[in-house]
Amino acid sequence: MVSNQNILGLTMGDSSGVGPEILLKAFAGKEITWPAVAFGDISILEYCNSLLDYGVRLHRVERVGDIQEDYLNVLDFGLMGKDDLTPGKINEKSGAAAREYVIAATKAALAGDIAAVVTLPMNKAATKLTDISFSGHTELIATLCGAKSITMMLASDQLIVTHISGHIPLSDAVKRVKQERILDVIKTTHEAVARFVEKPRIAVAGLNPHSGEGGAFGREDIDEIEPAVTAAKAQGIDATGPIPPDTVFHMAANKRLFDAVVCMYHDQGHIPLKLVDFEGGVNITLGLPIIRTSVDHGTAFDIAYQGKASTRSFVKALEYAVKLAG
Amino acid sequence: MVSNQNILGLTMGDSSGVGPEILLKAFAGKEITWPAVAFGDISILEYCNSLLDYGVRLHRVERVGDIQEDYLNVLDFGLMGKDDLTPGKINEKSGAAAREYVIAATKAALAGDIAAVVTLPMNKAATKLTDISFSGHTELIATLCGAKSITMMLASDQLIVTHISGHIPLSDAVKRVKQERILDVIKTTHEAVARFVEKPRIAVAGLNPHSGEGGAFGREDIDEIEPAVTAAKAQGIDATGPIPPDTVFHMAANKRLFDAVVCMYHDQGHIPLKLVDFEGGVNITLGLPIIRTSVDHGTAFDIAYQGKASTRSFVKALEYAVKLAG
Repeated sequence: MVSNQNILGLTMGDSSGVGPEILLKAFAGKEITWPAVAFGDISILEYCNSLLDYGVRLHRVERVGDIQEDYLNVLDFGLMGKDDLTPGKINEKSGAAAREYVIAATKAALAGDIAAVVTLPMNKAATKLTDISFSGHTELIATLCGAKSITMMLASDQLIVTHISGHIPLSDAVKRVKQERILDVIKTTHEAVARFVEKPRIAVAGLNPHSGEGGAFGREDIDEIEPAVTAAKAQGIDATGPIPPDTVFHMAANKRLFDAVVCMYHDQGHIPLKLVDFEGGVNITLGLPIIRTSVDHGTAFDIAYQGKASTRSFVKALEYAVKLAG
Repeated sequence: MVSNQNILGLTMGDSSGVGPEILLKAFAGKEITWPAVAFGDISILEYCNSLLDYGVRLHRVERVGDIQEDYLNVLDFGLMGKDDLTPGKINEKSGAAAREYVIAATKAALAGDIAAVVTLPMNKAATKLTDISFSGHTELIATLCGAKSITMMLASDQLIVTHISGHIPLSDAVKRVKQERILDVIKTTHEAVARFVEKPRIAVAGLNPHSGEGGAFGREDIDEIEPAVTAAKAQGIDATGPIPPDTVFHMAANKRLFDAVVCMYHDQGHIPLKLVDFEGGVNITLGLPIIRTSVDHGTAFDIAYQGKASTRSFVKALEYAVKLAG
């Protein structure tokens, strides 16, 4: 019998998108090699399983601990029926249901009933139809967890990046490049990577071209980043920086000189990561009291229910959830 | 006899750095396959040639047109002797001399005596010792040419990028993302790439994460970039954008869907280019009345006169000079 603490909670995502088929396809391909329970609607999974002929055996569980081997175990919410389904279209019901799966899985993780939450994509516009205050998948989880400050980590085989800021205008992101936040992200990054790499080597990217070339174009590299790196080192972290942005990713991804790169804004980290591995990236939310990993793609309405969606990012998200859960 | 219009002018760069040996090594390796004349100091080249045993035959020319086959032809400035040389160290004389080579080569190109200028690296600190107003290699050439607005293009085999702005703080770069400048760079990029690619497909990157997601985080993508792309299309240019920054380089470099990407700031283009080809990038200055390409690295004082410097970027710079000269 599996201890609850080893079970991964997998949220099915918005039924109109590629979430259900990725779950089934990964299970059918024997890519889900850890005890797991899906938070979703079994009617939708049954329909998709039959439509795409995956031959997955589904098992409805009442409680997380009731999982059976060789089955895709589903905690059924009974919110969506086959007739409610509108593949590839924004759907009020599927948007609302996706939110419920995430709320329940997050609470289960907080209660210690599952080891980690691995999420499939929600659709922001669909969920907003019944929850006007919904601002994002990650924000929902952060709020449920009472987390004050979160950090987005993107991980692939070649490169791991974390970010000082996320989905904000670049003009605002520049203003967030402050010593305290940078130190916080260096520490958070170090702590997360240390769960699966011994003595991780953390690179810290500069903000300005060539890290400002000694203050010639921009002072943040000197005034904010340098002191944060110095403070991190004083705390025993193997941190290096600021390293010129156009050099640090080559050093990390090609030369393997660093285990993770702390990035000053969203695209500084996303551009190199998606260039070296467009499909295999995993989105990890740091700063939560629970472990949460996610696929790094959206609902992909244009290819939903066609069996074309790649399971790569999802399988990597499972791997990282297990790595982080230790 | 070679027409002057087909001769490339190669500036030797700062004698304290890797410029002289790259010139000799490339010639010795038969990588300079076009008629060319070096603007530099023959005493330095003779010393380096002997020190590193390249066996290059040097030929002093009085005028650009006097070049001889099978020789590295050198327009000798007589500014530096072997005894003035301080490999790997900032040197007032070599900094001043490097400036003179560039001035002369630029003037020769403006006069039509050479087809293009291909530059080896200067050292800003060294040149500043005798010219306090010196702000950069490219700026010097732009001033000599009377160019009002220049655009930096970086080219490698996998990816070509151009930039709305260059060596300025990121906070200022964001403010330069204006419709008129973007349209100007799209047109300049199209015109340059069209010299060697038929009907070039130009991608235009967004500025904000996910190109601002419909204005949710940042308006520049909608207010400045979109209208510039529309205007470019109206002028018959195959332009697409704004494309989310974390997707456009994958589309261009991996999927080969575009021939060049117009980038909103220095690192947006430099990060992906240097990640896919750290050593093979070429720096091309657009917006000048002459053709100027350059290696995409510095004087590399740490390895000067050791024969270790890679000729890759220089040889690519020669190739692009020839491509652009048509």
